[in-house]
Parts: sequence; C-alpha cells; structure tokens
Amino acid sequence: MQLFYQADIVDGINLLDEEESRHIQKALRLTVGDTIRLTDGKGYYYEAQLAPNQGRSSAFKVLTKTRSPAPKHSIHVAIAPTKNADRIEWFVEKVVELGIQQISFVLCDNSERKTINLDRIEKKAISAMKQSGQYHLPMINGLIPYKQFVKTVKEEERFIGFVDEENPHRLKDLAKSKSSYVILIGPEGDFSEAELNLSYTHNFKKVSLGSTRLRTETAGIAACHILNLVNSH
Amino acid sequence: MQLFYQADIVDGINLLDEEESRHIQKALRLTVGDTIRLTDGKGYYYEAQLAPNQGRSSAFKVLTKTRSPAPKHSIHVAIAPTKNADRIEWFVEKVVELGIQQISFVLCDNSERKTINLDRIEKKAISAMKQSGQYHLPMINGLIPYKQFVKTVKEEERFIGFVDEENPHRLKDLAKSKSSYVILIGPEGDFSEAELNLSYTHNFKKVSLGSTRLRTETAGIAACHILNLVNSH
Repeated sequence: MQLFYQADIVDGINLLDEEESRHIQKALRLTVGDTIRLTDGKGYYYEAQLAPNQGRSSAFKVLTKTRSPAPKHSIHVAIAPTKNADRIEWFVEKVVELGIQQISFVLCDNSERKTINLDRIEKKAISAMKQSGQYHLPMINGLIPYKQFVKTVKEEERFIGFVDEENPHRLKDLAKSKSSYVILIGPEGDFSEAELNLSYTHNFKKVSLGSTRLRTETAGIAACHILNLVNSH
Repeated sequence: MQLFYQADIVDGINLLDEEESRHIQKALRLTVGDTIRLTDGKGYYYEAQLAPNQGRSSAFKVLTKTRSPAPKHSIHVAIAPTKNADRIEWFVEKVVELGIQQISFVLCDNSERKTINLDRIEKKAISAMKQSGQYHLPMINGLIPYKQFVKTVKEEERFIGFVDEENPHRLKDLAKSKSSYVILIGPEGDFSEAELNLSYTHNFKKVSLGSTRLRTETAGIAACHILNLVNSH
C-alpha cells in the first residue's frame, strides 16, 4: 500500500498538497472514508481516513500515530556535486533507499559544478523515502565551501574517501558499529593536496572504498552502503 | 590517462573503430608517435603507439602487453529488467564499476518489461570498464525465461534476494569468500511463489540484502557490492 508524505500532520483535519491530492483522486480514485498511510519524515507513521475534499485538496483525519525508532548509528555523506546533475539525483535516490541520516554538498577546489537544485534533490529524497517504506527523511544541506564544512563537522568517526597506493585502510575495517560517521567524497578531479591536509588536521582518516576506481556518485553510494552493512546484525 | 577498448588486438598494425578514432583525433588531438593505453576486455592491458591513420581510422602498434589477473571469486547477478530502461543501464554501469564477472537478464512471471536493448547495455558496460580502469569485461547474457535460467546455473553458491518477515539470513553473512556466486534479483512485482519454490529445488538460498525495501536495480547493485566486500581483504 502506498505511503504519502506530509511534513506537518496535526490532530484534526489535514489537507494534502496538490500533487498528492491529484494522485489520490485521479490515479488511485480514493474517496471519503478510504484509509491512507502517511509519514511526516520525522519518524512517525500515520493511518488516516479521507474526509471530504476541500477545493482540490484531499483532506484526512489521523486514526493512529506510531513512532518508528531511529537507528543507533548516524551516516552523513558530504559529497562534491557531479558535473552531470542526473548523477547527483541518482546518488540521493540510492542513498535514501539504502538508509542515510544526512547529506551535505561541498564545493571543492576541483569542483566543476558550482550550483545544485536543492528543491529537485529534496523531491527525489522524499520520493525515495516513500518508495522504500521509511519514515525518516534525511537532512539535506545546501552547497557550502569545503573548508567551511570540514571545520564544523560534529561526527565522531570522520573519513575521507581517497585511493592511492599508500592507502591500505578500508572503510569497512575502520568503521565501528553504532557510531556517528561523516565521510567526504571528492569531485571528478579529486581532492586537492590542501584539502586532504586540512581534513587530517580535523581528524579525518583516509579510507579506500574497494579495489576499483569509482565515479563520485558510485563512491558516495558505496560508502553509505558499507556503513549500513557495518551496522546490520 | 584514458583507456581505449578494442576486443581483438593483434601483433602488427591494428585499426581502432570509428568512434574511438574520432575521439583520438578530434578530442584528444593525438597523432603519429603518441602513446595510448588499451584493453581487450579479456584481462590484457596494452601500451601502444599511434601509426599513420588509415582513412578515418586511427592505427596503432602494440608496444607492451600485460596480463591482469582475474579475481579469485566470480560474481553473477541475474536480474529482471526494470520497467524503465534507464534503470537497467544504471545498474549495469554501477555493477561494472564495482566489479562483476557476469550479468544475466531473466524474464519473470511479474516482469513488466519483456525486451532489452543488449547493444546499448554492452556499450554502457564497456564505457564503465574503461572509466573505472578495469581490463575484464563481464559476460552479459540476453533475456531468457526464469525457469530456463535457474536450471542451467553452474555457480557453487546460489542466492535469491527476497525479503519477508521470516527471512533473517543476510547475504553478507552467508556468502563465503573466494567462491563463485549467482544471485537472482526479482522484478518490481517480485518473484512469484512458483519461482521461489523452483529456486529452492535448485539449491538457491533466500537472502536479505539489508533492512530497507530496495528497488530492483538498487538490490542488484547492493548484492554485487556485498559480494565484492566479502572478497576484499
């Protein structure tokens, strides 16, 4: 059964936004008295009953509200947006499906793309959350300069994805379970020497994600998946 | 430095295909005497020198030929093509980047898509192999009926991705390292009961890939990544 999203859900009558309302009325052909399932993306799951439409908006009344516990770990991927915008959106869809708590976009010395469309990215995230039956929408932060980002991270375990011959440390071996993680993923042209050095002074550890050379978005997905596997028992 | 692909490379003078030739001449502006790197996708890596063009084709002569060892494990993902063709191509690009030995497409009871464009898919695979600096092109098999596929598999360890409440077995815990694996990934509407039962009679084990509900192509990527991680030491 389909899951709907509404950021703020109150006790009495709620109105769904136009897109979700159109879907309910035209595609699913649901009507007064029918039951729908919703999430607020903040960890709550609702069963609700459709009330009479108000104008074009579908209205609903909450029947039950259930809290879904947050995981004991927290994964934060900070990534340089790829040149091709589709690849960023794909990255977001896939990490939300796999499970992620926070996504940041960082502007690096070698970044070719200097803007992102945060609205489109948030829509992708909401759609992937609904599709994969989850009730927690990750926090998504707009593009900020790498230097600024690195100085403000709060996570306990800090990693920077960087492959070279002298780097035998694998993320899957270094990450401890039930921790909070942040991992930096560089642009197509990779991190600069200055960026690498700055990360070390802020206690980031250089890690490899596998034996092949990965595109930026694939590296981001692989990192998120590894950290989820470390926490799956 | 860029990697070129040519399936058959001989000792004397070789001609590159039109697309690679155009790239060499127009984009990279390489000329007689310049060095290029190639792979035949069969595990060999070549350094070669450009010879005078023959018509529109770039010509080259092999300088060195090096064998790149194949991994000690073998990963085969058999997947029902997704309704949306882009998602199949993304799946192929990502699993080739991560490392895979064989891809099969299977037609299931609940498959919505009944055809695939194998030419486009092979092009995606070649491009991902070059991009990720690998020298082994996975074998890619055209669409065949599920029942036919299941009866002919030769791999030692056989898995079928299927999530239900009674399935506590995780692929990452069941797969042994240095083995040959095949894993079946179902369509959007999932495997039918008959398909599940048929797989069990052919020694497939039901496995879960993680704690969230994944789209078909994401499940395929996750399975391939897990099997690679099991083999990364």
